[in-house]
Amino acid sequence: MTKHFHHYSDSGRIESAIDDLASMTEPGRPFTRLVFSSEYKQARTWLWSRFEAAGLKCHIDDGGNLIGTRKAVRDAAASQKIIIGSHIDTVSAGGRFDGVAGVIAGLETIHFLNKHAIDLPVDIEIVDFLGEELNVWGTSCLGSRHMAGLLCADILSRTDQDDRQLAEEIVKIGGSGKPTLAPRQDAQSIMACLELHIEQSDRLESDQIDIGVVTDIPGINRYSICVTGKAGHSGTTLMQGREDALVTASIIVTMIRDLALDISGQDNRHFVATVGRMEVYPNGAAVVPGEVKMILDLRASHEHSRDLFLDQLQSGYAEISHRESCAIEMELISAAKVAPMDKTLRVHLARSADELELSHIDVSSGAGHDMAHMSRIAPAGMIFIPCQNGLSHCPEEFATTEAIAKGSAVLTRTILALAGRGF
Amino acid sequence: MTKHFHHYSDSGRIESAIDDLASMTEPGRPFTRLVFSSEYKQARTWLWSRFEAAGLKCHIDDGGNLIGTRKAVRDAAASQKIIIGSHIDTVSAGGRFDGVAGVIAGLETIHFLNKHAIDLPVDIEIVDFLGEELNVWGTSCLGSRHMAGLLCADILSRTDQDDRQLAEEIVKIGGSGKPTLAPRQDAQSIMACLELHIEQSDRLESDQIDIGVVTDIPGINRYSICVTGKAGHSGTTLMQGREDALVTASIIVTMIRDLALDISGQDNRHFVATVGRMEVYPNGAAVVPGEVKMILDLRASHEHSRDLFLDQLQSGYAEISHRESCAIEMELISAAKVAPMDKTLRVHLARSADELELSHIDVSSGAGHDMAHMSRIAPAGMIFIPCQNGLSHCPEEFATTEAIAKGSAVLTRTILALAGRGF
Repeated sequence: MTKHFHHYSDSGRIESAIDDLASMTEPGRPFTRLVFSSEYKQARTWLWSRFEAAGLKCHIDDGGNLIGTRKAVRDAAASQKIIIGSHIDTVSAGGRFDGVAGVIAGLETIHFLNKHAIDLPVDIEIVDFLGEELNVWGTSCLGSRHMAGLLCADILSRTDQDDRQLAEEIVKIGGSGKPTLAPRQDAQSIMACLELHIEQSDRLESDQIDIGVVTDIPGINRYSICVTGKAGHSGTTLMQGREDALVTASIIVTMIRDLALDISGQDNRHFVATVGRMEVYPNGAAVVPGEVKMILDLRASHEHSRDLFLDQLQSGYAEISHRESCAIEMELISAAKVAPMDKTLRVHLARSADELELSHIDVSSGAGHDMAHMSRIAPAGMIFIPCQNGLSHCPEEFATTEAIAKGSAVLTRTILALAGRGF
Repeated sequence: MTKHFHHYSDSGRIESAIDDLASMTEPGRPFTRLVFSSEYKQARTWLWSRFEAAGLKCHIDDGGNLIGTRKAVRDAAASQKIIIGSHIDTVSAGGRFDGVAGVIAGLETIHFLNKHAIDLPVDIEIVDFLGEELNVWGTSCLGSRHMAGLLCADILSRTDQDDRQLAEEIVKIGGSGKPTLAPRQDAQSIMACLELHIEQSDRLESDQIDIGVVTDIPGINRYSICVTGKAGHSGTTLMQGREDALVTASIIVTMIRDLALDISGQDNRHFVATVGRMEVYPNGAAVVPGEVKMILDLRASHEHSRDLFLDQLQSGYAEISHRESCAIEMELISAAKVAPMDKTLRVHLARSADELELSHIDVSSGAGHDMAHMSRIAPAGMIFIPCQNGLSHCPEEFATTEAIAKGSAVLTRTILALAGRGF
């Protein structure tokens, strides 16, 4: 068997699949295919037909995941499974590759197996995980949470501003809408979960590396920070004695960045802290701000870095609050532990890349992925491929067909190796 | 004639007028009486009837101002005029006294003159200036701008998000909706424009002073500041090399405060700088901010302070822009020069307070007022009265009836003195 990556997939088929999905977008706001939207349902129907055309047997599970199964050869001793999955929903005005590349790469593996009439002793499931992106109900990774038994009643009962309940939307897509408090029943038989994804950063591209072997999905802690001062007229409230919530919030934003820069410099492992969201009240040109609400997004591959950061932040708050006469409250909104990727799978992925003569490095994912949840119930691994300028979650997001084909080849060879059919 | 302030007005009448106007608010959002709203029109009808009940002859001028005139005694040599004015519109969720106190105090002067059958050799106009507060068309002081000849076609042609054109709204209220590029024709005959207003600060209250004699209405410069960085995924964009627009904006907000605090400490005259409005883009919890838009509101009694501030700010921008790899653009949105109050009127106001045995100090207004525009065409003066905790533009805004009565007495005695009828 050739070891050149381009023998493992069909460039034309990859490109046309990506183009087809890109056309299923909210009109006037490319590329927007929010979970449960009509565009999303259209894309699901399209994917179902592609799965069937590749000989996969399709069903929607209770969590609303679209699963296409290629059964193991009949005489297989035990019913072992390998899952290849990603997602086809996007953020608002997102890109064409985030999630999509992984689902399409999974299909290429199936096409390769079919083309070479390779029967495997394990089931292969290609999964389009339901709603991986953060949605209006405040929860990402709906499908993988379901599989991992982490989709609780509290989340499902939430309604959006149009009074749409999350559970009801899941029912409409074909799921049960019921909480799942235990991992899927056959979790023990899952020998590997694999996901190919664009890197969403520019480490691979700038070092001209073909493949990122993901070491871990960092723990993500989100905090709401509320700063309360005293609103006042911008003309009549003298500078001395102001309790300006925006000035205080600004000092906090700067401190967060400075602390994070310092800690990330000390620790080779991944550490980032971001204030991405800020709302100022009353937000009037002629009013000293009385309140500011922010969200702090903290991602660490190493819990020690996070704890060190939080300690220093709390000391800073005490000093700033006193000096600026504003109250500062920080509250944990959500916490996800570091999800290490399976070491054996990492070795397999690296070896497959070596065999294909593709360069590879170890990287932390930075972002969250369905594999974070899947790693709780089964060995999980991720393949990153370079994306242009590291851009993601925007219309400019781009990965070359060659990069996808390289990742796809690593994915296919790894599955063959896992199934005892190495070439 | 007694010199005790309470003889110059009727507490019960003041209170019931304020209560009546307070009841004319957007339901569920007290106290909201936006210019041109149905509540505003209802309040205008109410005020018209009050003006008529006090014997004033009412009309709406081309600028949409409601004017009640008490004619001079018939044998008066020349047709001199004194204007007493303020406004009855409010900001959203504003208070009951801002503007209202001044109009009601003007009416009390008329009642006093009527009660004592005092004929004056000058016309007295009580003016409810149209739309003093900043509106959705981005322009405050509509009525006084008209009188001063500053309401240009550009402003009048603006439309709000519901496609309501400013000019058309002025026509509906009884004005012409046409630009006015010259002061009102009889401007030469206006011997004084006077306005009583709550202080909107706590200088008078904290020093237990009855009356503030306003020295000037500071120049107000507004600037838009746009910071452009590079949006990125909060998980995958490493701390090193970020171009975080919110971090950069935060450094700017802090610098603005620090510079303003420093300059206001050096200069006894009024100087304040405020970032009251900030919008973050895309404002997602998991996105490094790519753009931030802010508005800087700068108020100075002394142009030198403002120029010094702007020089230091520009130097700061250069350094910050370079260090943070973000572009910073600042653009002037609007500029109003310092409006000094008339020195002779200030002497009259102070003398009237002395005669009434009321304590008084000189203050800069801090906020903008209709008198800033009127001062361009006639001698203008302002009387400030204390308001509780300095709060304004909020439902908690409060001034005691006694404080209004004291200010009203100063107003009445000043008018008597100006008309040559001192007691």
